[in-house]
Amino acid sequence: MNSIELVKSYEDTPHQLTGHGPRNIAVLKNVFESVDGTINSDKYGSGLVIEGFQKKMANFLGKEAAVFFPSGTMAQQIALRIWCDEKDCKKVAYHPLSHLEINEEDGLKKLHGIQPILLADKDRVIELEDVTNMKQDIACLLLELPQREIGGQLPSFQTLVEISKYCRQQGIKLHLDGARILECLPYYEKTIKEICVLFDSVYLSMYKGIGGIAGAILAGDHDFVAQSKIWKRRYGGDLISMYPYIMTAEKYFAERKDRMADYYVQAKELAALFNACDGISTIPEVPVTNMFHVRFEKQAQEIAPILAQAQEIMNVGVAGYLNNEEQGCSFEISIGDQYEQIPKQKVKVLFEWLDEKLKTLNL
Amino acid sequence: MNSIELVKSYEDTPHQLTGHGPRNIAVLKNVFESVDGTINSDKYGSGLVIEGFQKKMANFLGKEAAVFFPSGTMAQQIALRIWCDEKDCKKVAYHPLSHLEINEEDGLKKLHGIQPILLADKDRVIELEDVTNMKQDIACLLLELPQREIGGQLPSFQTLVEISKYCRQQGIKLHLDGARILECLPYYEKTIKEICVLFDSVYLSMYKGIGGIAGAILAGDHDFVAQSKIWKRRYGGDLISMYPYIMTAEKYFAERKDRMADYYVQAKELAALFNACDGISTIPEVPVTNMFHVRFEKQAQEIAPILAQAQEIMNVGVAGYLNNEEQGCSFEISIGDQYEQIPKQKVKVLFEWLDEKLKTLNL
Repeated sequence: MNSIELVKSYEDTPHQLTGHGPRNIAVLKNVFESVDGTINSDKYGSGLVIEGFQKKMANFLGKEAAVFFPSGTMAQQIALRIWCDEKDCKKVAYHPLSHLEINEEDGLKKLHGIQPILLADKDRVIELEDVTNMKQDIACLLLELPQREIGGQLPSFQTLVEISKYCRQQGIKLHLDGARILECLPYYEKTIKEICVLFDSVYLSMYKGIGGIAGAILAGDHDFVAQSKIWKRRYGGDLISMYPYIMTAEKYFAERKDRMADYYVQAKELAALFNACDGISTIPEVPVTNMFHVRFEKQAQEIAPILAQAQEIMNVGVAGYLNNEEQGCSFEISIGDQYEQIPKQKVKVLFEWLDEKLKTLNL
Repeated sequence: MNSIELVKSYEDTPHQLTGHGPRNIAVLKNVFESVDGTINSDKYGSGLVIEGFQKKMANFLGKEAAVFFPSGTMAQQIALRIWCDEKDCKKVAYHPLSHLEINEEDGLKKLHGIQPILLADKDRVIELEDVTNMKQDIACLLLELPQREIGGQLPSFQTLVEISKYCRQQGIKLHLDGARILECLPYYEKTIKEICVLFDSVYLSMYKGIGGIAGAILAGDHDFVAQSKIWKRRYGGDLISMYPYIMTAEKYFAERKDRMADYYVQAKELAALFNACDGISTIPEVPVTNMFHVRFEKQAQEIAPILAQAQEIMNVGVAGYLNNEEQGCSFEISIGDQYEQIPKQKVKVLFEWLDEKLKTLNL
């Protein structure tokens, strides 16, 4: 439910609780203003701009090689195709709310004829038993860390270790949908390499927690990456020039990769404020990353006017949309650079006002 | 054959006979320096930046709708897939040197199982008889105008009209690989709309004659474009933001779309200069667009040192590579903004020097 008032009041606020700030042209300008114009473009995957960044990301992730893709959608379909071809088995497994299942118009099925096995219930993460109980043989298991559509929930690190061990025993490749993997490190208290070593292939987004314009990194061993480059060309993803994405990714990666612990602490603080309000709960109750979902007991048509009013009065963006659920409605919070720019006192007053309003509604 | 001397001497020249100038970061900076940073990014195909440009390009091409793609590879495979699905026939036809056949790692076959019928000999364009003599039924015929790999040759406009008429009679869709279609208009003495009306779907590159960073336009009727957007998402081509490509495309399109007649005249002038040299011929002898191939009678190992020396002495870039052929060697010229920046007198001296040197070689 996108009431015009809700959208407009949200967009008019100078700061929002969520995100790094507006997705506008300044995201590009801020990076390129200080860049020398004589630097050569990358060209069909060659050149210092792309090869240097790929090498840096491979090192960072602890993988032999990495390749820059225009999108994670493309990168992940290709990863799964490579593993399916290697095993000569057209089945993979992932969560029912995986990006591949709900956001890609069935690209994996239509372009590759790959059949996904959906593991676990929609409202929880994949556990070891979901994997060991699978009746069918699969080429690859995809784990999304964190599981975005359920508020960024995570399995325990021990579970990851056990799933990885089981997959290796069974000849199943393990792929990390790590669009937001950096955001998981503070909770796991692990390095990125300690996570990635459990997986055969890893995808990392350049525009979510990192806040670039677009693009993705896919990493694995040399042979996997060589094959992924061939598929990138087949997809039309081997663009003549990707430097607008690569150079922004590199800049914002450097700026934000070590900020995830701050976002995580702030997410827990903000979730507690929501949970203290009448008729609001967060999923998960205590966030394990920088993200969580905010759920209202009432439907969007009742909540939207209150949020719109809050945004107008308090000048802080809470939500620009609300999704109606079976019961109540919800939206997603994903902490970035903006939250800490809002004075604590302002946040406090906002939540007092919200709680007050919701109490009246629930009378 | 890329001798280091040839590459280096070419790159060191301030101006080259071919192209718009170096593909460096300045191509982006020149556009974004004067753009307001608060302009909103496009978002997954929505927003003024992308929708406005798509509408403008649809109008320009005389089609109902258009969609911006990250690459022509992606756009064209999708166009062919849509036409194959519509007819429930997995066969298409194109030239043996089509981009789809030689530059895309068989994406069309591997991703769609579409079988191409190769029409005409490699060294000439597709004529009406090639189409009418086809034994097999096809869903779509793709014509590349101009045929890049043979120096940008073109069939006559009358042939286009007849092929189009025949295809419509036979229920065959006609797709235009118009990566460089604007470059053909001065020879045909037709408007872009007079060309595009002959085709059911049209692809136009944003970085060849136009000189943007990357990207492509695919145009057709509303239903075709709606389907192409679904496929764009399936491919992972529906990037969250494409404004770096769109806004540069829009700027350079405005600057260069009406310059093609100049490039064409200059290409004819330059080809004549090459043809006047001992042991050099161009394909075609008289260019019909801004492009042609330059062929030397001798092999690259003999020609490269001469060109390298010419480039060092004259400070004008002729070629940065040479492809060995069965007989002799060749490279491609594609006239852009640079050629007219080189003083005529300098060009004259360059060719006198070249002719002299080649005469000595051929003694």
